[in-house]
Amino acid sequence: MNQYAPPIADIHFVLRELAGLDEIAALPGFEDATWDVTSAVLEEAGAFASGVISPINRSGDIEGARIENGCPRMPLGWRDAYAQFARGGWNGLSVRKALGGQNLPRLVAAAVDEMWNGASVAFALLPMLTRGVIDVLDQVGSAALKARFLPRLVSGEWTGTMVLTEPQAGSDLSAVRTCARPAGDGTYRLSGTKIFITYGDHDLCENIVHLVLARVEGAPAGAKGISLFAVPKRHVNEAGALGEYNDVRCVSLERKLGLHATPTCVLAFGDQAGAVGYLVGDENHGLENMFIIMNAARFAVGLEGVGLAERAYQSARAYASERVQGAESGSSSGAKVAIVRHPDVRRMLMSMKSRIEAMRALALVVAASMDKAEWHGDQGERAANRAFVELMMPVAKGWFTENGLDIASMGIQVHGGTGFIEETGAAQYLRDARITTIYEGTTGIQAMDLVGRKICRDGGTAIRAVIRSMRDVQVDLELDEHGDLRAIGRQLGQAIGELSNAANFLVETYRYSTRLALAGSGPFLDLLGTVACGWQMGRAALAARRLLAPERVDNAFLQNKIITSRFYADHILSRATALSHVVVHGAEVTLAMDEAGFAG
Amino acid sequence: MNQYAPPIADIHFVLRELAGLDEIAALPGFEDATWDVTSAVLEEAGAFASGVISPINRSGDIEGARIENGCPRMPLGWRDAYAQFARGGWNGLSVRKALGGQNLPRLVAAAVDEMWNGASVAFALLPMLTRGVIDVLDQVGSAALKARFLPRLVSGEWTGTMVLTEPQAGSDLSAVRTCARPAGDGTYRLSGTKIFITYGDHDLCENIVHLVLARVEGAPAGAKGISLFAVPKRHVNEAGALGEYNDVRCVSLERKLGLHATPTCVLAFGDQAGAVGYLVGDENHGLENMFIIMNAARFAVGLEGVGLAERAYQSARAYASERVQGAESGSSSGAKVAIVRHPDVRRMLMSMKSRIEAMRALALVVAASMDKAEWHGDQGERAANRAFVELMMPVAKGWFTENGLDIASMGIQVHGGTGFIEETGAAQYLRDARITTIYEGTTGIQAMDLVGRKICRDGGTAIRAVIRSMRDVQVDLELDEHGDLRAIGRQLGQAIGELSNAANFLVETYRYSTRLALAGSGPFLDLLGTVACGWQMGRAALAARRLLAPERVDNAFLQNKIITSRFYADHILSRATALSHVVVHGAEVTLAMDEAGFAG
Repeated sequence: MNQYAPPIADIHFVLRELAGLDEIAALPGFEDATWDVTSAVLEEAGAFASGVISPINRSGDIEGARIENGCPRMPLGWRDAYAQFARGGWNGLSVRKALGGQNLPRLVAAAVDEMWNGASVAFALLPMLTRGVIDVLDQVGSAALKARFLPRLVSGEWTGTMVLTEPQAGSDLSAVRTCARPAGDGTYRLSGTKIFITYGDHDLCENIVHLVLARVEGAPAGAKGISLFAVPKRHVNEAGALGEYNDVRCVSLERKLGLHATPTCVLAFGDQAGAVGYLVGDENHGLENMFIIMNAARFAVGLEGVGLAERAYQSARAYASERVQGAESGSSSGAKVAIVRHPDVRRMLMSMKSRIEAMRALALVVAASMDKAEWHGDQGERAANRAFVELMMPVAKGWFTENGLDIASMGIQVHGGTGFIEETGAAQYLRDARITTIYEGTTGIQAMDLVGRKICRDGGTAIRAVIRSMRDVQVDLELDEHGDLRAIGRQLGQAIGELSNAANFLVETYRYSTRLALAGSGPFLDLLGTVACGWQMGRAALAARRLLAPERVDNAFLQNKIITSRFYADHILSRATALSHVVVHGAEVTLAMDEAGFAG
Repeated sequence: MNQYAPPIADIHFVLRELAGLDEIAALPGFEDATWDVTSAVLEEAGAFASGVISPINRSGDIEGARIENGCPRMPLGWRDAYAQFARGGWNGLSVRKALGGQNLPRLVAAAVDEMWNGASVAFALLPMLTRGVIDVLDQVGSAALKARFLPRLVSGEWTGTMVLTEPQAGSDLSAVRTCARPAGDGTYRLSGTKIFITYGDHDLCENIVHLVLARVEGAPAGAKGISLFAVPKRHVNEAGALGEYNDVRCVSLERKLGLHATPTCVLAFGDQAGAVGYLVGDENHGLENMFIIMNAARFAVGLEGVGLAERAYQSARAYASERVQGAESGSSSGAKVAIVRHPDVRRMLMSMKSRIEAMRALALVVAASMDKAEWHGDQGERAANRAFVELMMPVAKGWFTENGLDIASMGIQVHGGTGFIEETGAAQYLRDARITTIYEGTTGIQAMDLVGRKICRDGGTAIRAVIRSMRDVQVDLELDEHGDLRAIGRQLGQAIGELSNAANFLVETYRYSTRLALAGSGPFLDLLGTVACGWQMGRAALAARRLLAPERVDNAFLQNKIITSRFYADHILSRATALSHVVVHGAEVTLAMDEAGFAG
């Protein structure tokens, strides 16, 4: 099996031509993000992803995490790889310098995160969660909490978890029951059972900081009575020294379809006297405080979709180039050819490639907007970028993972029967991808968030701003002399019209029937993702067209970018009409049947 | 976990209203297929599927087939279940009476086969393969071969295999190398290694009859030098008594993504003196003779798609009705509801349900056509039905399995995080479904067959005949007073237009560029499947509308059928425009890029 190959050329193209790294590097604090530094970081990260993380992905899947003496034991090689990761300073890449990080922009971190995920999602989950805990503590933790936990989370000596789910509280966190009793000394004692806790316990390092949603005794019912606590696996005194084990126990590991190397734990808090927990932020504001990092976490899972898709594509294209089977259609020689020559195999590879490049482009454009939303000097720019990020977050999470899943499945298809054999590795990408459309909020939850909070609450203002930017690109494409660009422009124009139409329908409908609007929320998310990615591919085609020159070493890359954009326009963007039809005309029938009708 | 529930009511509806069981029962030889007999068979088969096969599906997946003392040992309970299956006479359900079967129409057998697959594809594969071997021997085997092997294949005392694939010969069987040396006594000695042999060895019965593709020494190269042999696992003398083991050995089992209970074998033929094989049909006509049963085998795999989809749907709808999570959108009470009340979950369930009913309808209509193609008294009717069956076969195989796969994946999505845990069982349906779009010819191979042999070779004659029948249904729908039916008619009309347009493009294009036509073959298969299933759902809506009456006990069923048809029209048929666009406008760009462009 080939190892993961970092897609450096395309990342460079997107950073430079679409996501505006120069503009980001000019924001205060990001002076280090020069081209030289960024290129070096990407190069080094790529080498690490390919050389250290990628090799343990398959073996980790086979061996899996296993409980031994009450603690999950990680597969062979994982401890060493994680130690190298922490030593390399990768954990703090985008953490601010005051906390010991390198303060690189999210834009650069997102490009690097795609690589970790391409090499191994099972591995990448760990720093992703630690990063989430760092962000929450940094933003709402007390000074004492920060001092106690942050330095060794940033260094990667310790790791973090997000502890939300309980058997009765999955998508609906307001149903959380885990109880927190004030101990009288400012700390709390937590008790309750949590499930589906990713990296909830492991032997990669000495300590784990759990961020736990729980209810303080006597708190109001529902979402408004939930608080957030930091609960360490081992106690840490104020000097930072490690003490005894806290009252948190890994009861069991789930046997999952994929991500076998990732320990997914059932955690019991407070089997004895109660787990010592420290309140993070104010009491009863736990959900809000958790939501501080929800955007980042959802975006991070979106990048899992991109990374997995890229890995599945690399595996498929390698197989298609090597596997000789059948003669070329229409050829009279009868000579057998590699299957990449067969039109339908090419179609699958193009479908994978074009969607991956489209997702990467949109992902990095959104990451740049996150940087601008936080650091741009102009308040209006900050607000506009914030609105764009908010709007795109459910799309990045939902669309990237749905397409990642589909691409991973297509990767198996390219392999034929070989893809069904575990040894090939192609099956693992599908198994691993299958959770990405579910955790951190299912695609359905993302779609509700999109339609309810992001489209309808502001009466369509945010989406209209994006549509205006899309129309600008459409006009540039339509006015170009290059036939492919004009064709892309036509498809994009039609798709934008469909998007606009569907958005208007939702805004109007939501006023009198949220159910009717939400019936089309899934297809609308698909529509927005399809068009937003097509918009970025249109920009990519324009940039490539501008740069094309026979003397450039990357001239073939640029020509292929135009072909890939055109493919996206004809094969993917063309779905917009059907999606819009479903949103506008398919809602009533979705709700029409009695529940009893599902019984038989 | 709930056991499989046979969808008897819908099968009855399709048999009676769409597939014309009465007409089939009037064909010579099918006098037994009365409504009483058919109902009893369906009832009994349903009970067997639910009570005997379904319970071993999950346990079989967990335990898997394992090699023990050189022979694959089947999981606990499988031996007993198979013995009951054979004792019940299920193996010979549609085998003609002269061979010891019951000679029920393919139409009835197809309905029953869906149930076996719904209960366990891993199990259903075994009788499916045995049935294939029976058909080949019956049609082209010598009298001696028939006498030697058929009785105990029909009774199910022995089972059969199709032994085609070699490492270098997968989709391209012309590359087969396994060698057959004439032994001078009319028999041959085979040697070679075959892979991916489903049920290639097992301990469910005493003997196995392998149908093996091999090359007689000195035969021409390529497809025209391949012959077909019957190679028993154990020798059988002319009196039918079992003798020594033949020179066939199961070298290993593949470790697969799914179908864990099914032993998928590497078989070594002729490690010692050569495996004794009996020529089936004429020398060098092996591929043709294998293709005799290819239609049946492909159709059978299509039914795996339908069965798996139904099983995944049953699991999802049960979970959605039981799982309480979140309040109803737009409701002020805040009371938590079962997730089936959430619009996007309903949308997924409706999408599953409507496609399953559409596939079942088309499957049984095609099965009825198989019966008519063989037994109708009128030659023109036989020819017309044969043409329809030929045209629909790649669709039944390709579209049913692609949609089965998608529905199995959607089933996991409905389960949320629980679906990713193997214990739930939902993950198994996806794992099992993943091979169905690959074996017996990948979807890409089906699509090539469809466009090349079924659409373009006759200049579009066969598809035009089908389009004419579709237009008749469209007209009936459009003229109906019921608003839903008129809406279905409009969607169907538009979709037929797109189909017609795409078919014309292919017929014209194929004349000058097979590659350009084949570039759209996959989307065209999707288009034809989408429209053909929509046509059947249109017929279903018309029948339901005609039968609707408040006093009927099945009135709710009929009303739901109209809703489901309408859903299919708005959510699935509406994709036709995009698919046709891809066929007509997306072909050139699919072929545009240099192969090197796939490298990075």
